[in-house]
Amino acid sequence: MPTIRILTESDLRGQVTLDLALVELIEQAFAALATKAVVMPPILSMEIPERHGEVDVKTAYVPGLEGFAIKISPGFFDNPKLGLPSLNGLMVLLSAETGIVQALLLDNGYLTDIRTAAAGAVAARHLAPSRVRTAAVLGAGVQAELQLEALSLVRPFEELLVWARDAAKAAAYAAKMSARLGLPVRAVASPEEAVRAAQVVVTTTPSREPLIRAEWLHPGLHITAMGSDAAGKNELDPAVLAHADLLVCDRVSQCSRLGELRSALEAGLLPAEPAPPELGQVIAGLAAGRRSDEQVTVADLTGTGIQDTAVATAAFARCKAAGVGSEIEA
Amino acid sequence: MPTIRILTESDLRGQVTLDLALVELIEQAFAALATKAVVMPPILSMEIPERHGEVDVKTAYVPGLEGFAIKISPGFFDNPKLGLPSLNGLMVLLSAETGIVQALLLDNGYLTDIRTAAAGAVAARHLAPSRVRTAAVLGAGVQAELQLEALSLVRPFEELLVWARDAAKAAAYAAKMSARLGLPVRAVASPEEAVRAAQVVVTTTPSREPLIRAEWLHPGLHITAMGSDAAGKNELDPAVLAHADLLVCDRVSQCSRLGELRSALEAGLLPAEPAPPELGQVIAGLAAGRRSDEQVTVADLTGTGIQDTAVATAAFARCKAAGVGSEIEA
Repeated sequence: MPTIRILTESDLRGQVTLDLALVELIEQAFAALATKAVVMPPILSMEIPERHGEVDVKTAYVPGLEGFAIKISPGFFDNPKLGLPSLNGLMVLLSAETGIVQALLLDNGYLTDIRTAAAGAVAARHLAPSRVRTAAVLGAGVQAELQLEALSLVRPFEELLVWARDAAKAAAYAAKMSARLGLPVRAVASPEEAVRAAQVVVTTTPSREPLIRAEWLHPGLHITAMGSDAAGKNELDPAVLAHADLLVCDRVSQCSRLGELRSALEAGLLPAEPAPPELGQVIAGLAAGRRSDEQVTVADLTGTGIQDTAVATAAFARCKAAGVGSEIEA
Repeated sequence: MPTIRILTESDLRGQVTLDLALVELIEQAFAALATKAVVMPPILSMEIPERHGEVDVKTAYVPGLEGFAIKISPGFFDNPKLGLPSLNGLMVLLSAETGIVQALLLDNGYLTDIRTAAAGAVAARHLAPSRVRTAAVLGAGVQAELQLEALSLVRPFEELLVWARDAAKAAAYAAKMSARLGLPVRAVASPEEAVRAAQVVVTTTPSREPLIRAEWLHPGLHITAMGSDAAGKNELDPAVLAHADLLVCDRVSQCSRLGELRSALEAGLLPAEPAPPELGQVIAGLAAGRRSDEQVTVADLTGTGIQDTAVATAAFARCKAAGVGSEIEA
C-alpha cells in the first residue's frame, strides 16, 4: 500500500529555509529549463470575480528529479476583512516515475515565498554588478523582506533603501530589516530616490502603473522586477526595458503575457523577435549575462513551475530523511 | 487555526456511491453550466513522453456551491509493468468563499470513475428512448461496468451485450455483470452485432480508430461515447455524428478538441457553426433533447471540472456529517 507523507507549514519551515543551498537549487532548476527536456505547460488560471478571488495552478517536469510538483495557489482578496490571509496554497508532489502522490506539502504559500525570493538572488548573482553598496526595494511586504534577505546572500550590501506607498509600512520595514540584516535600512520618499542611489533595485509591488522611469537609470544598475505576475500588473515604465543594456526573463512565454515584457511589447518599445534571453540560458552559458559593471540590466520574473518542482522535491527529501511529517495510507 | 479534512479512498467509498442521488447531483451540475455564471478554465495537461505518462488538472467554480475542486489525474501507462494501476489521482477541495483548503480527497480516481458514469446516466435520461430492452457496451474495463450500472438506474434494460477487443475480457465482463445486474449479459463477436441489436450503446474504449459505422445506425438508437478524452482518440466514425438526428456535447469547447466532435469537424462532416447543444442546455430546457422514440441521438462526453466540483463538494459534506476522515491543522 503506497503511503502519502503529509507535511505541514511548520514541518516545512523547520527543514527548508532561505539559504545559499536553496538559491543554488533554484539556479540549477533554471539551468535545467535551458538544457534539459523540461515540460512546463501554461499556468491554469481561474478567476472568480464574484468572490474577488483567483486560483493558479503551476507544474513542471524536470528530467532527473524524482518527483514533480503541482502547485495550487489561491488568492482571495476579501480574506483580510475576515481576518484571513489573501494568499494560500499547497503543493502536491507526484512521483516522476509512476505519477503516484508522494507527498502533500501544506505550506500555505511558504515554499512559494522562499523559491520566489531565491529566484531573485539567482538573477542578481548573474546580472547585478559585482559589488553592491546600496540596495533598494519597492514595496514593504513579505517578498520585500525575503528578496532582500536573499540578495544579501549573493551580493552583500552596506545599506538598504525602502520605498512603499504606505510610509508607515516602509518605516516598519526599515526597523525590522535593519535588525534582521544588521545594517542601516532607510525609508525614502520616492521610488526615484531609491533607484538613483542603488546598484540593485528589487520591485515587489502589485502596481498596475509604472513606478520606475527610464530617466532614473544609471550605469551599474540592476533591477529585478518580480511584482508583476498577471496581465494587468506593471512596475517598470516600458522605456526602462527598452533602455536597459540587457533584459532577461525567467520564461519568455510567461513574461510576454504576465510580466514587464508584456507592457513593453504592447507599447511597441520592444520587438517580439528576437525574444530576450531566459535566466536559465544565462546560467548555462548559452546567453550572455552582464558584460561590465557599467551596464544596466533588468530581470523580469513571473514565477515558474520548475521552481515549485525543485523546492518541493528537495523539501520532501529533507523531511523524509529527518523523519518529519506524518504518513497516511492512500 | 483552520483544519483540513483528509479523506481516503475507503472513507469516500463508504459515503458516496453510484446511485440515483449522484446522477441527480451531476445532472444539476450540468444544468448549472448552462444557467449560472460557472467558471471552467481549459484543462491543464502535461505530457511526460519519456515516462509514458501524463497528468491532467481540471477545475470549475459553480455559483452556489460552498467549495470548488481542483482535480489532479495522472496516467502513467508503464505502471502495470510495476504492478501498479495506470490511473490515479486526488482532488483538493477549496472554499469558494476564501480559497482555503477544506479537504484532500485521496480517492485514487474513484470519484472520477463514478462521476463519469453518472454523466452517462444523465445523458441517457435526456437522450435515450423512453424504453430500452437491449443495452450494449464496447469495452470491458471499469467504465464499462460503471456506465452500465448507472444506465440501469435511469433506463432499466432486459439484456446487455458486450464487445471488447479481448474476447476473454468480454466473457469475464459478461459473467461479472450478469451477477451484478441480475440479467442476461452476452459477449458478442463484433461492435456491429452490439449496435444493431441495442437501443442504447455506451462506448468506453481508448480506441484511436472508429469502432462504430454509420450504416449500423437504426431508428430509436442512442449512443453515449465517453472513451475519447484526448486529441488522438476516436470511437465513432465521423459519419455517425453527421447522420444522427441530434448530437449533444458535455462541453463543446472540450469536445471540439478532445472528443468525437473533433474528428467530425476535422473530417469536414460537421460545420463548426452552429455548435451542437450542450447537455446542460438540454437538461435546463434551453435546447431540445430527443423528440421521438425514432430519433438517433449521440452524446459526446469528455469529462468536465463541474462534475468534479459537484462530487467533491457532496462527498466532503457527507463525510463531515458522518464524522468520517481525519483532520489536520494546516
